[in-house]
Amino acid sequence: MESKLVVALDLMKERDLLEIADKIGSKVFAIKLNWPAIMLSGSRIIRDVSCYSRVICDFKVADIPNTNSLITEKALEMGAWGIISHSFTGHDSLRAVIESAGDMKVFSVVSMSHPGSAEFINPNTDRLVEMSIRAGAAGFIAPGNNPAEIARIRKMSPGRIIMTPGVGAQGGKAGDAIRAGADLVIVGRSVYTSSDPVEQVDNLNMEIDSSV
Amino acid sequence: MESKLVVALDLMKERDLLEIADKIGSKVFAIKLNWPAIMLSGSRIIRDVSCYSRVICDFKVADIPNTNSLITEKALEMGAWGIISHSFTGHDSLRAVIESAGDMKVFSVVSMSHPGSAEFINPNTDRLVEMSIRAGAAGFIAPGNNPAEIARIRKMSPGRIIMTPGVGAQGGKAGDAIRAGADLVIVGRSVYTSSDPVEQVDNLNMEIDSSV
Repeated sequence: MESKLVVALDLMKERDLLEIADKIGSKVFAIKLNWPAIMLSGSRIIRDVSCYSRVICDFKVADIPNTNSLITEKALEMGAWGIISHSFTGHDSLRAVIESAGDMKVFSVVSMSHPGSAEFINPNTDRLVEMSIRAGAAGFIAPGNNPAEIARIRKMSPGRIIMTPGVGAQGGKAGDAIRAGADLVIVGRSVYTSSDPVEQVDNLNMEIDSSV
Repeated sequence: MESKLVVALDLMKERDLLEIADKIGSKVFAIKLNWPAIMLSGSRIIRDVSCYSRVICDFKVADIPNTNSLITEKALEMGAWGIISHSFTGHDSLRAVIESAGDMKVFSVVSMSHPGSAEFINPNTDRLVEMSIRAGAAGFIAPGNNPAEIARIRKMSPGRIIMTPGVGAQGGKAGDAIRAGADLVIVGRSVYTSSDPVEQVDNLNMEIDSSV
């Protein structure tokens, strides 16, 4: 059974990041890279990590259409498998990401799990989902620590890939997220701060497999 | 009189970017770098451009508080003068940028000028301004092609720095933006695609000086 695990490698040293990517790459669905990893030495780290695993660029793209296209084109050029974009910036901004994405999967953020997301983003989840489907998003980011919300977004978006962060250190349970309808769960610190990341990944894969 | 001009250098080749930065750096208030510039070879380009001018990192930061802090700390470490953050991700996310910014100025996006910004961002401008002031933002991004909106945001935020993009290729007029209350105007393509960027900068500085 293919892993449903996406591991966020938010490490501040390139060597450490590539070392863990090498160890766990074949056991996970994808490795997620955020801007701090790109700040180390540019977007070529996407290509380096792609040697070990699919790469999802968690860029939460949130600019005007032209800039969104430039960012997306570079991620595609470096071999990323997927890219995460905000939808709050509107249909044309999200559409620019999707049109520049080639065969990359575009995941739209329609809900977040930190307290501040209750102010502007989460009250708009339904409209953001509807607009993202219209724009052609391949999937959604839903909050891993809120199974009821995952189930609701699942119901609103048949056929789309649902990926949920907030699992592990942030308190969610990988099995609960999958049972609620998530296709992929993101784990970060509980893997990369572990003394044995491979064992952590094996345990999480087992937890997920036993939940379906 | 100090320049009120911020030049966005959205160039896809590091050598071209540094060459223009060298030519215009002493004639502008700051140079603005966006993610595509960081994707070239990492955040050290902030330090390189800082040799010629102040640098404003137009990162439109829009993540959870922890990730926002990591991004901001790196920009500070590289010597940036300012950083642009979204505010729609909520008070804690913006606050994380401000708390990690040291003596960098944090500019909060409360309004944008592309069509899609009418869907979710611009209807919330007043609440975003109010929350950003509460969070301690040093300034705001207001739409350069909408003087009435600049004047309105100016009135809502005494003492804050207002910076407006959308001037030049996007149709706004630098002088109009300044008269409406902007402190700094951002120009991009009309400078860096010019055969004589220095002459363009001189002309824009004169246009701005004659408007105040």
